[in-house]
Amino acid sequence: MDNHELIQTLQEQNDNKIVMLVSDGIGGLPLKPGGKTELETAKTPNLDALAKIGVSGMSTPIKPGITPGSGPGHLGIFGYDPMKYIIGRGALEAAGIGFALGPNDVAIRCNFCTIDKTGNISDRRAGRIPSDESAAVVNILKQIKLPDVELFVEPVKEHRFVLVIRGKGLGGNVADTDPQKTSVPPLDPIAHDDESKKTAELAKEFYNQAKKLLADQPKANCLTMRGFAKRPALPSYKELYGLNAACIAVYPMYKGLASLVGMEVIGEAKTLQEEIDVLEKRWNDYNFFFVHFKYTDSRGEDGDFDAKAKMIEELDAIVPRITALKPSCLVVTGDHSTPAKMASHSFHPVPTLMVSEIARTDDVQEYGETAANHGGLGHFDAMYIMQLAMAHAERLAKFGA
Amino acid sequence: MDNHELIQTLQEQNDNKIVMLVSDGIGGLPLKPGGKTELETAKTPNLDALAKIGVSGMSTPIKPGITPGSGPGHLGIFGYDPMKYIIGRGALEAAGIGFALGPNDVAIRCNFCTIDKTGNISDRRAGRIPSDESAAVVNILKQIKLPDVELFVEPVKEHRFVLVIRGKGLGGNVADTDPQKTSVPPLDPIAHDDESKKTAELAKEFYNQAKKLLADQPKANCLTMRGFAKRPALPSYKELYGLNAACIAVYPMYKGLASLVGMEVIGEAKTLQEEIDVLEKRWNDYNFFFVHFKYTDSRGEDGDFDAKAKMIEELDAIVPRITALKPSCLVVTGDHSTPAKMASHSFHPVPTLMVSEIARTDDVQEYGETAANHGGLGHFDAMYIMQLAMAHAERLAKFGA
Repeated sequence: MDNHELIQTLQEQNDNKIVMLVSDGIGGLPLKPGGKTELETAKTPNLDALAKIGVSGMSTPIKPGITPGSGPGHLGIFGYDPMKYIIGRGALEAAGIGFALGPNDVAIRCNFCTIDKTGNISDRRAGRIPSDESAAVVNILKQIKLPDVELFVEPVKEHRFVLVIRGKGLGGNVADTDPQKTSVPPLDPIAHDDESKKTAELAKEFYNQAKKLLADQPKANCLTMRGFAKRPALPSYKELYGLNAACIAVYPMYKGLASLVGMEVIGEAKTLQEEIDVLEKRWNDYNFFFVHFKYTDSRGEDGDFDAKAKMIEELDAIVPRITALKPSCLVVTGDHSTPAKMASHSFHPVPTLMVSEIARTDDVQEYGETAANHGGLGHFDAMYIMQLAMAHAERLAKFGA
Repeated sequence: MDNHELIQTLQEQNDNKIVMLVSDGIGGLPLKPGGKTELETAKTPNLDALAKIGVSGMSTPIKPGITPGSGPGHLGIFGYDPMKYIIGRGALEAAGIGFALGPNDVAIRCNFCTIDKTGNISDRRAGRIPSDESAAVVNILKQIKLPDVELFVEPVKEHRFVLVIRGKGLGGNVADTDPQKTSVPPLDPIAHDDESKKTAELAKEFYNQAKKLLADQPKANCLTMRGFAKRPALPSYKELYGLNAACIAVYPMYKGLASLVGMEVIGEAKTLQEEIDVLEKRWNDYNFFFVHFKYTDSRGEDGDFDAKAKMIEELDAIVPRITALKPSCLVVTGDHSTPAKMASHSFHPVPTLMVSEIARTDDVQEYGETAANHGGLGHFDAMYIMQLAMAHAERLAKFGA
């Protein structure tokens, strides 16, 4: 019996609610050995109060030493083994713009490129055409229609856009058409298996029509296609946990990732305060809320230690609004560490805490890396956070008699 | 995707170097409950200084409660799941004398035995013939030639020696010829699969020639063969980690184990000081160094608590010579514990520490068992030491976008 089978068997229905507050990249590093991390430097009276009454630990996002991207990082904290469930590049690109991929969709990362009169690629990125100009060219492609399928063409950034083909019987196993060099034409999309033949034919037809429509465009008169991918076959939050789950996030990437596991993306918050407004307003409509705070990661990526610590203080300030709602289990964690010292994601484990009536309080007195090393949750794989949260919310039955 | 696949995908090339200092059997036990271990008793100012600026934890060699032999113990700290990669007995015997097994080799543990006039075994160990006499008899066997293959016959100790058959198409699945009792003749080598038929035939022919050559030997006039084994199919350090790895060791066993994973065995050190001489001299030639210190295990096996503590102090004394080389990541660990109290290898986890610019310092202030329980690496499987070292040396890229 694998872990997911077990959880599905044990899930229980009741009114208990879970809030998972994810501070992206919250884990950090001291600037010099023996010093304090960003989180340990920040003044966090509310989070420290939670650590006192809750249980803390250190979660390892993937495996020891592995630095996760946002995709695998979030799959882990959502309870999916990130080494088993791999999100294809097209699907991740779609997630990145918040596109809710369905089970009949194939997502493709496309690049505008420039071809010369002989049809050979002269610039694989169309001179990194500015995003606003690129979006206008994407709009031209929206008029393309193909039989029996729906098409979605959405801009991403600069020369990048996403094509989603929605229809029955479409496999995702198709070769890239980007030849990875100039002075040759784009390749044909070739199916790697029988199930993907129809996808390859549709992609070829899309390409042919697009080429005609773009012929007179000065910068972006052609396109290449990469990373054909279906939505990964993830059991949904409803199936796995029996939860009606909601995602409250500002950035499209996290909305997209949440929608892959069947969470409903709610609200249109632009700030953390507005995210909590949404949480309060929709409190009665769901029993699980994933609340994503981006800026701890952003300031870490900037390499700005003080600014990251300040973002953590902003996070701390909204905690009382969450606890006032009295969730049965409140989890505070991150999808990975982003130490300002490294100005990048890192492999370091993430301090994680859970508050619940049945949390076994430990001797941890604050929310921070050094303190969490001693906590009652120990060091554990991030993919167990969700079932620990379910247990702390008393939503899992006993295994065996 | 399994862990090795992931590491192979993520390995990065740069100039960062890793030193793994392995103190064999370093973990210990207090002589009475509540007392200090050998490591906690020894004065280790240099290792303690590393613990202050680095990150510590407890590594479990195999699985909780499992006592490893040297083979599985080292496979674990080299990053190979010791329950997946099993070193056959013949291959381990060859490793034990430092014989670098190749991919076309079959290694066989042989015993000299004594047979009576009827051809029945009268002594399965040839009276435990002394090693020097045994070596002379081994020399007689070196004249044996067989078609299409190379033969290597090497003494081990007393009645034990190793036969290696090198050639194409040799399987390792052949039954032992030792009947495990006296008053019967040695068994025939029987192939368990088609691939091993040629091996069995060659072994039989070797046996027939050997029997004639040994007919007049007073003590050792026959032999038995056990543990036929190919080299285990381990991905090399080059493949797995992209590392040019060197092994610096005094004892043949550890050189043999290192060569199984593709490390180059360098120098001919006879003491720890000489091992560090080799490290210094060859510093520019490799990016990974496995430095093995044997005597903590030896004195533990002797049951000599004070002598083991003294060996740990010797180890501590050379630490500044290693840190002076400024490795990007220095790992200090052991392959298992060897408590003097037990006078044997044991299952107890091993205090492990890593020093690097990006180590997340914890509140551990010394290198020792009790302190390491609280460390930032937590309790983890020894097979993750290598990827943690790679991460701390910034030689692993991000997983996913």
